[in-house]
Amino acid sequence: MMAFKVDLNCDMGESFGAYRMGNDSEILEFVTSANIACGFHAGDPSTMRKTVRMALEKGVGIGAHPGTPDLAGFGRRAMALSAEEAYDLVVYQIGALDAFVRSEGGSMQHVKPHGALYNMAAKDAGLSEAIAEAVYRVNPELVLFGLSGSELVKAGEKAGLRTASEVFSDRTYGPDGSLTDRRQPNALITDPEEAIAQVIRMVKEGKVRATDNTDVELKADTICIHGDGTAALDFARRISAALPGEGIEISAFK
Amino acid sequence: MMAFKVDLNCDMGESFGAYRMGNDSEILEFVTSANIACGFHAGDPSTMRKTVRMALEKGVGIGAHPGTPDLAGFGRRAMALSAEEAYDLVVYQIGALDAFVRSEGGSMQHVKPHGALYNMAAKDAGLSEAIAEAVYRVNPELVLFGLSGSELVKAGEKAGLRTASEVFSDRTYGPDGSLTDRRQPNALITDPEEAIAQVIRMVKEGKVRATDNTDVELKADTICIHGDGTAALDFARRISAALPGEGIEISAFK
Amino acid sequence: MMAFKVDLNCDMGESFGAYRMGNDSEILEFVTSANIACGFHAGDPSTMRKTVRMALEKGVGIGAHPGTPDLAGFGRRAMALSAEEAYDLVVYQIGALDAFVRSEGGSMQHVKPHGALYNMAAKDAGLSEAIAEAVYRVNPELVLFGLSGSELVKAGEKAGLRTASEVFSDRTYGPDGSLTDRRQPNALITDPEEAIAQVIRMVKEGKVRATDNTDVELKADTICIHGDGTAALDFARRISAALPGEGIEISAFK
Amino acid sequence: MMAFKVDLNCDMGESFGAYRMGNDSEILEFVTSANIACGFHAGDPSTMRKTVRMALEKGVGIGAHPGTPDLAGFGRRAMALSAEEAYDLVVYQIGALDAFVRSEGGSMQHVKPHGALYNMAAKDAGLSEAIAEAVYRVNPELVLFGLSGSELVKAGEKAGLRTASEVFSDRTYGPDGSLTDRRQPNALITDPEEAIAQVIRMVKEGKVRATDNTDVELKADTICIHGDGTAALDFARRISAALPGEGIEISAFK
Repeated sequence: MMAFKVDLNCDMGESFGAYRMGNDSEILEFVTSANIACGFHAGDPSTMRKTVRMALEKGVGIGAHPGTPDLAGFGRRAMALSAEEAYDLVVYQIGALDAFVRSEGGSMQHVKPHGALYNMAAKDAGLSEAIAEAVYRVNPELVLFGLSGSELVKAGEKAGLRTASEVFSDRTYGPDGSLTDRRQPNALITDPEEAIAQVIRMVKEGKVRATDNTDVELKADTICIHGDGTAALDFARRISAALPGEGIEISAFK
Repeated sequence: MMAFKVDLNCDMGESFGAYRMGNDSEILEFVTSANIACGFHAGDPSTMRKTVRMALEKGVGIGAHPGTPDLAGFGRRAMALSAEEAYDLVVYQIGALDAFVRSEGGSMQHVKPHGALYNMAAKDAGLSEAIAEAVYRVNPELVLFGLSGSELVKAGEKAGLRTASEVFSDRTYGPDGSLTDRRQPNALITDPEEAIAQVIRMVKEGKVRATDNTDVELKADTICIHGDGTAALDFARRISAALPGEGIEISAFK
Repeated sequence: MMAFKVDLNCDMGESFGAYRMGNDSEILEFVTSANIACGFHAGDPSTMRKTVRMALEKGVGIGAHPGTPDLAGFGRRAMALSAEEAYDLVVYQIGALDAFVRSEGGSMQHVKPHGALYNMAAKDAGLSEAIAEAVYRVNPELVLFGLSGSELVKAGEKAGLRTASEVFSDRTYGPDGSLTDRRQPNALITDPEEAIAQVIRMVKEGKVRATDNTDVELKADTICIHGDGTAALDFARRISAALPGEGIEISAFK
Repeated sequence: MMAFKVDLNCDMGESFGAYRMGNDSEILEFVTSANIACGFHAGDPSTMRKTVRMALEKGVGIGAHPGTPDLAGFGRRAMALSAEEAYDLVVYQIGALDAFVRSEGGSMQHVKPHGALYNMAAKDAGLSEAIAEAVYRVNPELVLFGLSGSELVKAGEKAGLRTASEVFSDRTYGPDGSLTDRRQPNALITDPEEAIAQVIRMVKEGKVRATDNTDVELKADTICIHGDGTAALDFARRISAALPGEGIEISAFK
């Protein structure tokens, strides 16, 4: 038995109608949790069913990945949603995915908000509380995934949910533990070795070197892997191969 | 105890964003089953939550009212959906509504397809089988509402679901038991007394006088009441008042 | 000939599919400019055609009323749109409406951004420049409507467009000339007499009494009238009747 | 100077938000007319602007490619649209694209309905007349593209529009000149040589060998080239190379 455990999660089910996105079936070989789009920022009913089936076949934990109602912007544009609107959007999307999971004989493991909803919630306690309440009221057994140290994780705990603190392998961090804005030149880690080293330290030491060269504490329950592009697949393969050698077991969150 | 029983159902939850439709709170005083729009042809997450709450408060049976993905056409335009597409749309929409029902402490009673989906299914065995399978796989306890004598009722029974045969108070019937096309001049019964008389005979005798003056047999488990306009509310009041005097108990389907 | 002139504008064409909104045909009797929704935050192709026809029949100036792609939020939710996205959305929506205007034998007079797009542009020079450039490139003869003193009016002038500075009859102003946030208790003026008095002073003196009791200077080329609700219609009637007696001619902007 | 002339057209601008589709910049090297999606079945404002710019740079004729309001089905699902709805959808979409063409300094050449709208119009005179009227009223100089022998071409001529009769290189024809339904096993011609031979005969002899081995007469003003997939690009290259050697000049329709 290994000394450390971590979950690998990836966004998937992001195809829409005639539009294809992602390498879901390949990525599912490497991850332990799948965040499946629910039709608002990406995904559609048929894609949801197919993605749920694949995840169940591979024994990967299934999560709802609710987003803002912004298909044209892929759910990445910040939007002034009220707490009530966020609550309702999350209940709706969890329910839609849950029906596919149940009808295929499985059960849902987690919920991870997508894109702008995830980022806005990280810093907004009221929005986070609405999201956590939505998750809890639909099913209090669900695990809420949120950025390590974020308001979303705090709100989940306060609501009585089990939470998973998420870290990013390929993103840099500010001294306050927030992700560097994607529009900054140093936001992304493009060297796979550097990304893997960052992950190993985050899991084993609970620390990351921030952009100002100070160390920031965080909690690494689950690592976000990107699913799009061939580089993503290659990185999933590399990190899956590297972690066990460091005494880190990759295992489903439940 | 009365000799006959019938359910009164009404479409509701059809508001969308800033757009208001229907008199849901008033109509809920008279009906025993509410068909709640699920966001495809009408409705939105906030409207769904509010409508579910009102129906639970009034003790009215809650049903999903899934439609085609055609908000601009209010789900009334026939569309060439494959059986697979119909299956997926129905699973998705039932799930979305179910999450609101469960999170408010209730349980869903039935499913009634909306508009073009209802009408296409009435005559299309393949489409009906896909819809019935979707309902069954999400929850085999759900009751499937369909036009009396339709392929949808047959498919529901074949799938092992409990079904409710629906009749219309204000529509005329063809000699084959189908509804007269709305574009025909004699499609609608505008006189409330005539509509009530038609309902009473459908419930007590299982018959309706068709447009060719022959009698057609049908089964009247549930009567569709329209929810929009002040005339609708008035009709709901009249029929609710008239039926008990004829020995017909209005009672929730379950 | 009167000493002062002002344009009265109203948002319209906001119905969508089966959903009705506004009293367009009645309001058109009183206003001189119609801002017609273009299908993003409200409106649809059929509503656009019908509204254009009505406006042409009444001789009311026609404007495009482009909004954010947020039908569910009626275009009122602030959204992080890039300048490029705003440019493209505005070109698209002006073009769509312009085709109806031209095909009905008319010509478009103006463009007024809607809701969140209007409010975000008022304070964001970059967004305003993108919108002004979009209008100019589609047709440099179009008049750009924006809040008096806003970045949008400045950007329009800089781009070489003719602009109309807009004032509100039923909204209070801050000492910097901005509208009081709708969420503040003192944001709205509900007394029609007070609203009319505010308008008269804005037109004749170019001043408004702000919420801190100081006077703020503004320019009143056009007054925004609301189109929804019976109170709106009543107010349109009152203000139309009141202004001529004050020596203020209500006349189309062109 | 060559004895024959033909236009090559291709659907493009079908990307949507984060979703990529097609090889527009490569295909533009080979075609003389580009049918650009207008945001209903595919495309979005930013994609439209970029595609218009590329087409203008390459000197390719620009056409609007209006579709049904069915992004989830890519405009391929038949829908019960009224003639009035079709008219309005077509005016709207032509206008939206036209604003990009004009703002980039170009002018629109043609209109070709997409997918289900094209196929429904081919056999429905009423729908075709509505589409032709929409095109004519927006701009009577536009060329209407339709299936050779279709109701759409007839309606265009009747309306006073210039029309282009379209033929397909990779589709088989029935004895009545209609395209074989895609769901039939013999619907597609997969051998590029066979496809090119079919095109050459259609252009030079005005005939095609139908699936029952009879010859059908048709008119080949423009040939539809597919834009998606690497095979499409290869075919575009081959047919562009083959036609001049047969005395067929590939030239823009205007």
